[in-house]
Amino acid sequence: MVQAQVPWQEVAKQAQQLRDKSIDQIQPPVPAVPSPTELPLNVTSIPRKLLSEAELKITESPPEELLKSLATGELSSVDVTTAFLRRAGIAQKLTNCVTEVLPHTAIQRAKYLDEYLATHKKPIGPLHGLPISVKEHIGMKGLGHNGGFVGWWDHVAAEDAHILQLFQKAGCVLYVRTTQPQCLMHLETSNNLYGVTVNPYNRTLTPGGSSGGEGALVALKGSPLGIGTDIGGSIRAPAANCGVWGFRPSSYRLPLGGLTAPMAGQEQIVPVIGPISASFEGCHIFIKTLIDQKPWLDDPSLLPMPWKYTPGSGSGSASTNESYLRKPDGSRKLKIGVLWSDGVVQPHPPVTRALRELTAKLQAACPDTVEFVDWTPYRHDLAWDIISSLYFCDGAAQDSAAIASSGEPWLPLSKFIIHEQPGVKEYSISEVWQLTLRREEYRAAYAKVWNESTKAKVWPAKDTTTTTGSASASASASTSTEDQYPVDVILCPVGPGAAPPLENARYWGYTSQWNLLDYPALVFPVTQVNPAAKDLEPESDYTPLNAQDERNHKLYSSAPGRASYVDAPVSLQLVGRRYEDEKVFEAMELIKSAVGQLPLEPFR
Amino acid sequence: MVQAQVPWQEVAKQAQQLRDKSIDQIQPPVPAVPSPTELPLNVTSIPRKLLSEAELKITESPPEELLKSLATGELSSVDVTTAFLRRAGIAQKLTNCVTEVLPHTAIQRAKYLDEYLATHKKPIGPLHGLPISVKEHIGMKGLGHNGGFVGWWDHVAAEDAHILQLFQKAGCVLYVRTTQPQCLMHLETSNNLYGVTVNPYNRTLTPGGSSGGEGALVALKGSPLGIGTDIGGSIRAPAANCGVWGFRPSSYRLPLGGLTAPMAGQEQIVPVIGPISASFEGCHIFIKTLIDQKPWLDDPSLLPMPWKYTPGSGSGSASTNESYLRKPDGSRKLKIGVLWSDGVVQPHPPVTRALRELTAKLQAACPDTVEFVDWTPYRHDLAWDIISSLYFCDGAAQDSAAIASSGEPWLPLSKFIIHEQPGVKEYSISEVWQLTLRREEYRAAYAKVWNESTKAKVWPAKDTTTTTGSASASASASTSTEDQYPVDVILCPVGPGAAPPLENARYWGYTSQWNLLDYPALVFPVTQVNPAAKDLEPESDYTPLNAQDERNHKLYSSAPGRASYVDAPVSLQLVGRRYEDEKVFEAMELIKSAVGQLPLEPFR
Repeated sequence: MVQAQVPWQEVAKQAQQLRDKSIDQIQPPVPAVPSPTELPLNVTSIPRKLLSEAELKITESPPEELLKSLATGELSSVDVTTAFLRRAGIAQKLTNCVTEVLPHTAIQRAKYLDEYLATHKKPIGPLHGLPISVKEHIGMKGLGHNGGFVGWWDHVAAEDAHILQLFQKAGCVLYVRTTQPQCLMHLETSNNLYGVTVNPYNRTLTPGGSSGGEGALVALKGSPLGIGTDIGGSIRAPAANCGVWGFRPSSYRLPLGGLTAPMAGQEQIVPVIGPISASFEGCHIFIKTLIDQKPWLDDPSLLPMPWKYTPGSGSGSASTNESYLRKPDGSRKLKIGVLWSDGVVQPHPPVTRALRELTAKLQAACPDTVEFVDWTPYRHDLAWDIISSLYFCDGAAQDSAAIASSGEPWLPLSKFIIHEQPGVKEYSISEVWQLTLRREEYRAAYAKVWNESTKAKVWPAKDTTTTTGSASASASASTSTEDQYPVDVILCPVGPGAAPPLENARYWGYTSQWNLLDYPALVFPVTQVNPAAKDLEPESDYTPLNAQDERNHKLYSSAPGRASYVDAPVSLQLVGRRYEDEKVFEAMELIKSAVGQLPLEPFR
Repeated sequence: MVQAQVPWQEVAKQAQQLRDKSIDQIQPPVPAVPSPTELPLNVTSIPRKLLSEAELKITESPPEELLKSLATGELSSVDVTTAFLRRAGIAQKLTNCVTEVLPHTAIQRAKYLDEYLATHKKPIGPLHGLPISVKEHIGMKGLGHNGGFVGWWDHVAAEDAHILQLFQKAGCVLYVRTTQPQCLMHLETSNNLYGVTVNPYNRTLTPGGSSGGEGALVALKGSPLGIGTDIGGSIRAPAANCGVWGFRPSSYRLPLGGLTAPMAGQEQIVPVIGPISASFEGCHIFIKTLIDQKPWLDDPSLLPMPWKYTPGSGSGSASTNESYLRKPDGSRKLKIGVLWSDGVVQPHPPVTRALRELTAKLQAACPDTVEFVDWTPYRHDLAWDIISSLYFCDGAAQDSAAIASSGEPWLPLSKFIIHEQPGVKEYSISEVWQLTLRREEYRAAYAKVWNESTKAKVWPAKDTTTTTGSASASASASTSTEDQYPVDVILCPVGPGAAPPLENARYWGYTSQWNLLDYPALVFPVTQVNPAAKDLEPESDYTPLNAQDERNHKLYSSAPGRASYVDAPVSLQLVGRRYEDEKVFEAMELIKSAVGQLPLEPFR
């Protein structure tokens, strides 16, 4: 506990000094960046002006390519680590996404790995030499882990978190730790120790949260692969807002041991850990590396489910032995449920455009193997009532105590998720059981909706002269009578818009929905808010559904509104049934290979 | 809720009248049995004197044999159902194990199935025509389900429980409902509605509980296969005490929807549902039938884990494609950890004899493929502290209210598990989280013990001139250095003795241990308390470990003591790691085929 006599501002100063000092130790030194007032809103191109060709080649390679070069020795681990350390330092100066870099231990580790490869003529493990970035609340032995609370500044981890032990066994290099919000419960990233993390595509916008440091860092290619956590969208909001890849696995597949957060022991809504990466393959490597080590043998809360997705299985090749998609006549088919709106808060036009463009491209590319139905959301408002009541069953006593312990102020988004949610109060045990039953009833009701998606009208309509590729397509759709299988995956927004202006991420429904249901969800970049795509033209036909919806609409429609969103990445989410994580990957691979590239056009 | 003006005794009378009336409707009528004073202690042979040859042939066939004959039409479903109805009626008169028989709907269903087979020339499903008995608190549409509380007598189930829906889809016949204790939380079976259920092998002993009606009924062959539930031993204690087979699966594999019990929504210690059966194969059929129907599609609390054990895979045949046991050189090996005592309460001599006889037989039969180590229990006393605190986190408010609602008295074993356990109190949410963390820490510590069982000394010692087959064998054991794999399964007692005299089942540790750890556990019959086996000779070398141990010792050593246990079945338990349910089955099959038969000698 911080001693009462030290003002919280002093602690914050210490924290920032330690961070800055750690960056100063990177060799060669991290280049200076223009002062904030001289920076453009979109800073994603800045690192390219400050690093060497070799460093750019390294840092702009996706993890799967890096691993190949590291395994053969074509790239040394020291060079790779150095490049990412320097780029992470730049990313910090551009977006404030880092809490600490670890140049000394990282380079030491990299040297060891280089020597290992030289001696043994083989990599030490499947992640040989890969730098991995780590959200701060994931414990590292001997280092502080504050979980976003000033009052926890002097907490020190006794051990490396289980996930870090496994990644290190696999050969990775830990070199940087990243920011998170107060309470770890904002879909943005701001706390009183380090201040606000901003979006590298537009510094007036949030990178999302709570793993927003990871989002910004990976987007700036200061990390090829990062570790985030997610209990309401905390992996997916940052991945989406920053235009990178992120995955929320089903619960109890990846190890959570060694994290710090309030409410340890809470099981009503289980947090998960997962990847934020520059690439789809990075997400896959992350999960496979962990699960292949059978983490359940040490952590019996984990399920002994092998990871069964094999890259290539979704590409239509017949040579793979595992597939989660149907093969009615030997060829793979995919039925996608498209969720245009959750019926509570309607997405901004660029999100709808992303859905429209992606589905149109898929239709064109796979007229025979990909089908669509409109997904009718089942009471997503009720889902929010339940999950927001279950988040803080102790009435947020532990969070409140952690904030109070240093005297730091409550941030607006902490107030939003705790004080402004009517369901947050101290419940009795019996009341928690009642809420848990409501959660189970909701999950069962949603399972029924999924089972009955066999009956939804398929589009594009078959055997008609016209095909359409938009939301209105369902109007002309016909029911397929001979192929009545349920939806494989749901395609949906990740939020009610692209990354919102700071302190405006106040609608969690598009991500927390899948936490309540414990569905796996993969986030991927599709497009950017773009004047040329008419994203800035006013909508003509908006009718508010409710006050929340109206608020979200105004965010985009009223000044500064849509103009302030320029360049924000627009991402989508592919969601599977509980424990169908592998199917989500297989479906994503099929989609990715069908549309050629994601995002559909390279980002500015 | 029962109206306040009706005394609970009147409600009990109604309940018993309904039960007796239902038995009176069985045709041909259930034969009279001798009056209680004229009955022997061991009533297992009585039904053989009261039923026809044909009925005996049916009711003494295990479920796997019945299913074959039913599928071909060799036996009609009506004949099979009638035989089990009549034998269940006799079982009720002998042990008070039934709450209701359902002759009308059962025979109607059986007729339908016979007609189906005649028309379609194939069975309706894998359980075609098999009678299944059901513990009362598993809901049946339109029928009462009181969960052992007088005050719940007028509760009526709106739907069949999920498990019953699945079994009926598979073709079974539901024909009888069985007794359970007050609160469903005794390892015996007594409530104020129906009185006390007794052990068919010795009517002064308990059949165990809480699924004690199933235990007694299956032992008397009034059911080939029954449904029990288990949160601390409630499937395994009855199976063990009654000398039949029972299995506690890992959590979230079999569907719990539609059960009535206090504390619905409680997830700290998850109850499970599972089989009590006349045969090992019955347990397997039970699970496979349920899991093959993918119950997780309707109940998303369940894990989508296919059931992968195939009978025959544990017999050494090389033709099967799934095996959970090692095959170092193409042949299967099994390493068994033998838990002689849990270090808290030492088992009575007949239990130790059962362990000794079974391991000796296995050693003789499989000198090269089965190895043993002594399993060192890790703090089973702590395990009980944790689980007994987690059972009633609301301070048993719901149970107390259910008892109070009718004015029925608290039974001694309800007081034992609620009032006499220091950990039972109303906890705050934060306290429950703390307890949950203790549970998780304990599970992780036990996983570590299991991982480190590689280092335990293996016996019988290899390459020495003598081999021994008893607890003391470990003294002469040697460490195998080239084959350091962990234990596959633990072999252990199911309780601190055979079925105790009524109201004495006050030590749960040998079963609740595996609930806390969520380990799958299979119970099987080994022997009987037998004067000829020197079970009645006083022990010479007993030293009490603690007051609980001394109490248990006195139960056997002080008058009437050991003499009162004569004929009680002695069973053992095979325990696997969490979610290694299939491995437990494969290991059991190997053991069973090695020793020839279980119990080792037919029961008297």
